[in-house]
Amino acid sequence: MVDIVTAAMVIIGDEILSGRTKDRNIGHLADIMTAIGIDLKEVRIVPDEEDEIVAAVNALRARYTYVFTTGGIGPTHDDITADSISKAFGVPCEYDAKAYAMMEANYASRGMEFTEARKRMARMPLGAEHIDNPVSMAPGFHIGNVYVMAGVPAIFQAMLDNVVPTLKTGTKLLSVSVECPFGEGTIGGPLAEIQKRHPDTIIGSYPKYLDGSFWTELVVRARSPEALEAARAEVAAMVAGIVEASAKPD
Amino acid sequence: MVDIVTAAMVIIGDEILSGRTKDRNIGHLADIMTAIGIDLKEVRIVPDEEDEIVAAVNALRARYTYVFTTGGIGPTHDDITADSISKAFGVPCEYDAKAYAMMEANYASRGMEFTEARKRMARMPLGAEHIDNPVSMAPGFHIGNVYVMAGVPAIFQAMLDNVVPTLKTGTKLLSVSVECPFGEGTIGGPLAEIQKRHPDTIIGSYPKYLDGSFWTELVVRARSPEALEAARAEVAAMVAGIVEASAKPD
Repeated sequence: MVDIVTAAMVIIGDEILSGRTKDRNIGHLADIMTAIGIDLKEVRIVPDEEDEIVAAVNALRARYTYVFTTGGIGPTHDDITADSISKAFGVPCEYDAKAYAMMEANYASRGMEFTEARKRMARMPLGAEHIDNPVSMAPGFHIGNVYVMAGVPAIFQAMLDNVVPTLKTGTKLLSVSVECPFGEGTIGGPLAEIQKRHPDTIIGSYPKYLDGSFWTELVVRARSPEALEAARAEVAAMVAGIVEASAKPD
Repeated sequence: MVDIVTAAMVIIGDEILSGRTKDRNIGHLADIMTAIGIDLKEVRIVPDEEDEIVAAVNALRARYTYVFTTGGIGPTHDDITADSISKAFGVPCEYDAKAYAMMEANYASRGMEFTEARKRMARMPLGAEHIDNPVSMAPGFHIGNVYVMAGVPAIFQAMLDNVVPTLKTGTKLLSVSVECPFGEGTIGGPLAEIQKRHPDTIIGSYPKYLDGSFWTELVVRARSPEALEAARAEVAAMVAGIVEASAKPD
C-alpha cells in the first residue's frame, strides 16, 4: 500500500532575501526528506516579520503532514520565531522551565552571565517540546506538526538529525536518471508518449547547459520499483534509438 | 522621498524539492534586487503542478510590485509554466507569432527539425511580451507584473539581465556590517537598545559558527545614508566597548 507523507519548509530570513547569506538548508532538507520517504511539497522564504511568519506557518501546517522552520531562534531582538509560532498556535510564549534550568546551569558552569538576551532562547510556545541542540545548547522545539530549528546550517543539521527518527515516513519516491546527450527539443515528443504510457511514474526532463552545449538529464520517479524500471527501460531505449539514428550515414 | 518597490520569486521545480538539483537562482536574484533597489520580500518553491503554480503566482502578483518565476518553460511535457501563467491571468495560451517565426527560422538555418516539442516553447499567454534569451533562443515572457524565465542558471541570469533595465526601482536599502567577535548572547541586550533608538534602521544579528566557536555579523540596513551611519557607529562602539572590557584584568 502506498502511504504519502508530506512536508513544507519555512525559512525565516531577511538575510536570505537580501542576498547577504546564501541558503544552504533547502538542499539538505530536500535530500533528507527524499531519503526517508517524505515528499517536500513547498518551501517559502519569508522576512523577519511576525504577520508573514504566522501566515506562512498556518497556511502550510494545515496542508502538509509536517512543517519545518529554520531561523530566528537566537537571543537577539530580531529573533521573533518563538513569538510568531506561539501566535500561529494561539498560545502564550513563555520561558520553558526545563530549557531555562538547563541553560542557567550551563552558563553558570562556564562562568558566563545568563543575560536577558540568552534567556530569550528559553522561550517557546506553551506546550512545545524540545529539539535537542548538541552544537550550542539552546534547544529548538516542536508544537503540533511544526518543527522549529536554527538557521545556522551546522545547528539545523544537528537538530534535524534528532527530529528525523521521530517522524512518520511514507512510501519512498524512488528515482533513477538517464543521461541524454541531446537537448530537450529532440526528445520532448517521444518522452511525453512514454509519460502517457506510464501514468504511475513522474518523468522529468532537466536541461543542463555546459560550455555552450546542452544535454538533458531524464529522471523517472515512482513509488513502485517495477513501475520505475518499466518506464526507465523505455526512456533508455528511446535515447539509445536516437543516438543510433543520428550516427547513421544519410 | 522614500520609494519602496517589492518583488517575489516563484521557483517551479520538482527537482529542487526532491534535492536532485540545488538551487542557484535565489541568491542571484536576491543580490541583483538588493543592488538595484527592489526589496525581495518572499520566495516560494512549488512543485510542477498547475494548481500550485496558479495559486502562488496569483497570491504574490497581487501583493508585490513584481513576480519573477524560474523553471518549466522548456519543450517537454513537464514544462507547464506557460499554461499555468495563462490560467492565472485567465487568458488563452497560444503560439506567439513572433516567437514561432523566429524559432522556425533559427532551426531551419541549423538544419534541425522544428519538432512539436520545440514548438511548445513558442507558446505563451495571449498578450505576453518576450524576454530575449541570448543563450538558447527560446524566449521567456512577461505579462502584467509577472516575469517568466528559465530555470537553468546561465539562461535565467541572461534573461534577468534583459529584464533589469526595464524595471522601476526604489530607494535602495543600504547595508553595512560590523563584525563582532562575541556570540549573540553577549551583545543581544545592548543591540536591542540600539535598535530602539534607531527605528528608521533594521538591525540584524547573524550568528556564524566556525570550527567550534561563534562570532556574529551585525548588519545595519537603512534607506538613508545618515541613518545608516548613525546606527553603525553605535553598534561599532558597543562592540568595541565589550572587547575593551573583556580585555581588562579583573
